[in-house]
Amino acid sequence: MFRPEIKVLDCTVRDGGLMNKWQFDDNFVRKVYQNLNKSGIDYMEIGYISSEKAFSRDEMGPWKFCSEADIERVTNGIEKKIKLSAMADIGRIEHDDFLPKSESLLDMIRVACYVHQIDSAIDLAEHCMDLGYEVTINLMAVSTVGGRDLREALDDLSKSKVPIIYLVDSFGAFYSEDVEVLAEQYLEALKGKTLGIHCHNNQQLAFANTIAAIIAGANYLDGSLYGIGRGAGNCPLELLVSFLKNPKFRVRPLIEAIETQILPWRDKIDWGYFVPYMATGVLNQHPRAAMALMESEDKNKITAFYDKLNNPSELV
Amino acid sequence: MFRPEIKVLDCTVRDGGLMNKWQFDDNFVRKVYQNLNKSGIDYMEIGYISSEKAFSRDEMGPWKFCSEADIERVTNGIEKKIKLSAMADIGRIEHDDFLPKSESLLDMIRVACYVHQIDSAIDLAEHCMDLGYEVTINLMAVSTVGGRDLREALDDLSKSKVPIIYLVDSFGAFYSEDVEVLAEQYLEALKGKTLGIHCHNNQQLAFANTIAAIIAGANYLDGSLYGIGRGAGNCPLELLVSFLKNPKFRVRPLIEAIETQILPWRDKIDWGYFVPYMATGVLNQHPRAAMALMESEDKNKITAFYDKLNNPSELV
Repeated sequence: MFRPEIKVLDCTVRDGGLMNKWQFDDNFVRKVYQNLNKSGIDYMEIGYISSEKAFSRDEMGPWKFCSEADIERVTNGIEKKIKLSAMADIGRIEHDDFLPKSESLLDMIRVACYVHQIDSAIDLAEHCMDLGYEVTINLMAVSTVGGRDLREALDDLSKSKVPIIYLVDSFGAFYSEDVEVLAEQYLEALKGKTLGIHCHNNQQLAFANTIAAIIAGANYLDGSLYGIGRGAGNCPLELLVSFLKNPKFRVRPLIEAIETQILPWRDKIDWGYFVPYMATGVLNQHPRAAMALMESEDKNKITAFYDKLNNPSELV
Repeated sequence: MFRPEIKVLDCTVRDGGLMNKWQFDDNFVRKVYQNLNKSGIDYMEIGYISSEKAFSRDEMGPWKFCSEADIERVTNGIEKKIKLSAMADIGRIEHDDFLPKSESLLDMIRVACYVHQIDSAIDLAEHCMDLGYEVTINLMAVSTVGGRDLREALDDLSKSKVPIIYLVDSFGAFYSEDVEVLAEQYLEALKGKTLGIHCHNNQQLAFANTIAAIIAGANYLDGSLYGIGRGAGNCPLELLVSFLKNPKFRVRPLIEAIETQILPWRDKIDWGYFVPYMATGVLNQHPRAAMALMESEDKNKITAFYDKLNNPSELV
């Protein structure tokens, strides 16, 4: 589906980093950056932008912070065609932590928030716009938000200056019909704004739901190399780009980056389709219980896990 | 989506056996049978029914043949609620090889064919109907069939007695829109017959495409435990049953069968989402080149494989 307005964003390092505390080495990030550049992807989300006061670098890798020095180290000497994005979580960064765009290697700030944080998110996003950045707001975990709360949030967003709003399936709970209905509601409520889509793959629907969102009118599309990301992961970028068939994109550099950078991580962290992630997705729950199981020696004890999820009183 | 006409068929042993020459031991097949029974699944496809003259038991496991003795061994002593199916490939079995239904433990024969074999398939399928079996025809690799050929095949099928016709995405090449368009064409051409759907997961769309087919009117749905099947595998049965929400189905016995029977095979054979399977799916090709790569020491050399697929002259 060749639609010139469509922009593709890779969140390999940012969302994948949720699985390893952003402990990707510089060579990994540099190679991913280089190959995303070659592939014609529009944005690379290189990590979270967080206050150095909020987290310790002893525990978290550089891509939890995205300092200018961090970014400079992995991008210098490579021709930059791709735009760089960082995600800001409400409460983990202050207005003063942001540099003016003219002093930063970042092009875009994506503000992630839960529905009760929508006012803070708009405030922070508009601050970043004033600093010169492209800005989005990504309203997370919409699958758990009631109808009235969502209508209010969309109304607040419609009155804001923020031009791009993301529909986010944080728990991988949506079927394509859910995405279609919500995308329609977002576009109706957010006239004149651009809709983005970010899906998780708990039910193997991240790619299908991204396509559903495209058809419904979404123009900012998130994916990651080989689907790397939290829990079941994201929409695989190589599938998305193969589908789009836009001549500005090339698939081969993505395959090469998967071979050289992503496959080695396959042996260290478990993202993708596993029954524990499937179970939290089907039940519309945060994947944290599944992630804890997958990191334990009991990762294959999926029946007991399934029973506990379905009988929460047994959860300790 | 609760629609009483919907029947679910598990093809774990039949399609999964394409990855290990049907060398599942009796305990595996017995346990799968037992748990599918508990879960309320309508059909279990226990293998291929093939002439003992066409293949050797030295090379192929019992589920390439599905003799009555084979089936009896893994089902005796277990209350039978599920119906048993076997798949017949045109050219690998003769009319005389089938027993009358009254002498068989099988309930259904599914005749698989390519488009040029449609007349033979109808002939064999009607023979099996005369013997008393439920019968389907599964027209394979439709993604490579031209419009005129498909119309002729559907016309032939419409004139046959065969009541159930499957739409089959053998190569995992279809997007949901393809499935919608084809399902509509099949249902229009095959008035009064039932439509089935069998998808492969090369692009992580087997489940999404099965849902698309359900919405379009398909009532016979194929899946397999944890998606086990040739190459990228099939629609995961546990996802499908979770989606259907029909109270006659239970998910837990499927999870248990995955834990005890399927996960151990994860260490021995590679089905699921891998770049080589993705690449053949995107290019609408048979997965055999990808399967050969995945069985070789070069399984991670995915860029070279991608290049060869895209430059067939380099294929040796």
